Amino acid sequence: MDKNRAAADLVWDPTGSITSVAGFRAAGVACGLKKDGQPDLALIVSDQPATAAGVFTKNLVQGHSLQLTRKNIKSGTARAIVINSGNANACVGSQGQKDARSMAEQTARALGLEPDQVLVGSTGVIGQELDMPAIQAGIKSAVAALTDEPAGGHAAQKAIMTTDTKAKECLVKLKLAGQEISIAGMAKGSGMISPNMATMIGIITTDIALPASQLQDLLTKAIQPSFNRVLVDGDTSVCDMVLLLAGGRAENEPLAAGSQEEALFLEALTQLCIRLAKMIAADGEGATKLITVKAEGAQSQADALKVVQAVASSPLVKTALYGQDANWGRILTAAGYSGASFDPDQCSIWLGQLLVCQNGTAVHFDEAKAKKILEENEVTLTIQLGAGPASEEMWTCDLSPDYVYINGSYRS
Amino acid sequence: MDKNRAAADLVWDPTGSITSVAGFRAAGVACGLKKDGQPDLALIVSDQPATAAGVFTKNLVQGHSLQLTRKNIKSGTARAIVINSGNANACVGSQGQKDARSMAEQTARALGLEPDQVLVGSTGVIGQELDMPAIQAGIKSAVAALTDEPAGGHAAQKAIMTTDTKAKECLVKLKLAGQEISIAGMAKGSGMISPNMATMIGIITTDIALPASQLQDLLTKAIQPSFNRVLVDGDTSVCDMVLLLAGGRAENEPLAAGSQEEALFLEALTQLCIRLAKMIAADGEGATKLITVKAEGAQSQADALKVVQAVASSPLVKTALYGQDANWGRILTAAGYSGASFDPDQCSIWLGQLLVCQNGTAVHFDEAKAKKILEENEVTLTIQLGAGPASEEMWTCDLSPDYVYINGSYRS
Repeated sequence: MDKNRAAADLVWDPTGSITSVAGFRAAGVACGLKKDGQPDLALIVSDQPATAAGVFTKNLVQGHSLQLTRKNIKSGTARAIVINSGNANACVGSQGQKDARSMAEQTARALGLEPDQVLVGSTGVIGQELDMPAIQAGIKSAVAALTDEPAGGHAAQKAIMTTDTKAKECLVKLKLAGQEISIAGMAKGSGMISPNMATMIGIITTDIALPASQLQDLLTKAIQPSFNRVLVDGDTSVCDMVLLLAGGRAENEPLAAGSQEEALFLEALTQLCIRLAKMIAADGEGATKLITVKAEGAQSQADALKVVQAVASSPLVKTALYGQDANWGRILTAAGYSGASFDPDQCSIWLGQLLVCQNGTAVHFDEAKAKKILEENEVTLTIQLGAGPASEEMWTCDLSPDYVYINGSYRS
Repeated sequence: MDKNRAAADLVWDPTGSITSVAGFRAAGVACGLKKDGQPDLALIVSDQPATAAGVFTKNLVQGHSLQLTRKNIKSGTARAIVINSGNANACVGSQGQKDARSMAEQTARALGLEPDQVLVGSTGVIGQELDMPAIQAGIKSAVAALTDEPAGGHAAQKAIMTTDTKAKECLVKLKLAGQEISIAGMAKGSGMISPNMATMIGIITTDIALPASQLQDLLTKAIQPSFNRVLVDGDTSVCDMVLLLAGGRAENEPLAAGSQEEALFLEALTQLCIRLAKMIAADGEGATKLITVKAEGAQSQADALKVVQAVASSPLVKTALYGQDANWGRILTAAGYSGASFDPDQCSIWLGQLLVCQNGTAVHFDEAKAKKILEENEVTLTIQLGAGPASEEMWTCDLSPDYVYINGSYRS
């Protein structure tokens, strides 16, 4: 597929929300789980049975709510998603399983559905039991507040945030065989972000009609160059998931596997995920800037990934970027221990467009120019390995004292 | 060998230095590489040709001084080590190779040695050429200041420090076949610390007589449970090395390979390295406490290592410890993504002696007790995986805002 053509055919609306897609309603309410009284319970409802796909954390430890969702999504359809923030509902034993089931049951009862049509998510502190009376009241309020206005999606987004400081939402529209299709997404995630599979909570809605297996296949592909390429601190949570509901209101013809239409839909879905992923990196805990790390000229795709991951993970690179210090030696050092195979004497490094290291050796560069580049809100680091044709990119953020302050007292 | 017996036979002197060992002289001087005028050139001399062993960074990128040392140490003997701090002599091309050779030549000339009997080390900023007139003056001053008093070793230790805040030195004596043997060590290292092989600069002197191949074998073994088990930030430097010089002044009988005497010497050497490694972790950049991470009950040694490394690397665990927050969920989470194979429902966690998570489930614990444990300068985290017989331990430190301040402006 011609990527440029695909990109040109996508119409973006950054003010859209998951309820901008026909057939979905949502709400977000405050039920008292968060100490500061902020919204902490989100509800998303599809007016008709939606096909459902999901990707989940690869952590061995998995939250009780996430475990229930893995079970319920096996049917390939769902009607609602209920998510609380402020408490991860993880590592609390059988009570946690019971509470997750109870969340699904209460939501189902209030909406006239079966409990196994409800997916459940929880995010927040690990090892504390859920306040179920608060959840129960929250579900009732949320059902009463459901709306198909964009405001419903915005409210739901606010209610899944934990240490996030900015909303992460987007809507994209595309034409498939002359017919308009909408895809919208929201995400939360700011710390505990690493590219081992899904790395946060993401909810995507679309009005396309697609069978569950095809939907799952497309979601699995879409998260690779997006949510699997964002890293804040290398930690992965026990509650990470991305859920995709396809309501089918577009009543489109089936998309043949391998068709140009399927490729275009995948491109739109992927680009949406990339936008949300970059919003996560830019809003990393304590972040002052979004960092794009590019590795080019790697011997293999795996080597390129090792390099971008090592550089994006390096606390020394990230603190230098916070300090606006053009300490490229740390970038080369991180590439050097990444495990990728290359000759340092063939390696060159750019900060933005400024060459700072050529063939493994320092270049005399204009420090004022470097400072200007590093003062920007977005900085791109490019590492040319000179070893082959493969390239990769990853998004991260700088490491500031605020990361420490935010995480030094998260639980207490 | 009976470890308790071995430990009992070791006599420790924390006030000793590398010149407490007969046959060694040292000095440390300020030659102007460090902007703040602190000592930045160290010289260590063995009065007779010493057998020499070394372990080096596994980073693909290697400093020019380190490359020369790798070459010169192949002969298995050395007479002197010269080390500058403040500049890594790395990534400056052929000038860096020339400067490393020049450091060895000037040192050799001043001491009446051959250049290939001199080992060279550099540590500091990457990508800047050495100030060779300053180095030349420093070598002359250092030769004039050489002494076999303990003060000589102390001065050399100060001169290899970069962001270190505390001296890292130790002396141990043991009896082998009725004869007293001394081993002393010094180390620098505070940031860019990770367990991929040698992780800092360490210099060890001993008066034992041993052939080079046996010495190398013992050093390689000794660094595994010591310098290879310390982690500050997961970054590895391009200048890391541990050098061991055995001067032979003890004039002992050969130690048969596999003998009890050899095992006792190895035990002493290992324990010395462990003490220095723990000093490095405790003095990690910005550290307020030394953290010992223990994994027990792992299926394999490799799994135990994965768990301690993941927990010791986790910024979220480390910031929680800085904040004295008993957030054990992050410890379990890190174990969960470590790649080790275990059942979270069999996993228990202790902060010091306080059980906080049993069989994967929260335990109601006394928050005041937890707070008291986390207020200490040394904290031990124990993860019992319940999956097998293997255990490992690793030393790290907490992550404080000062780590960011120190590293945000290191170069400039």
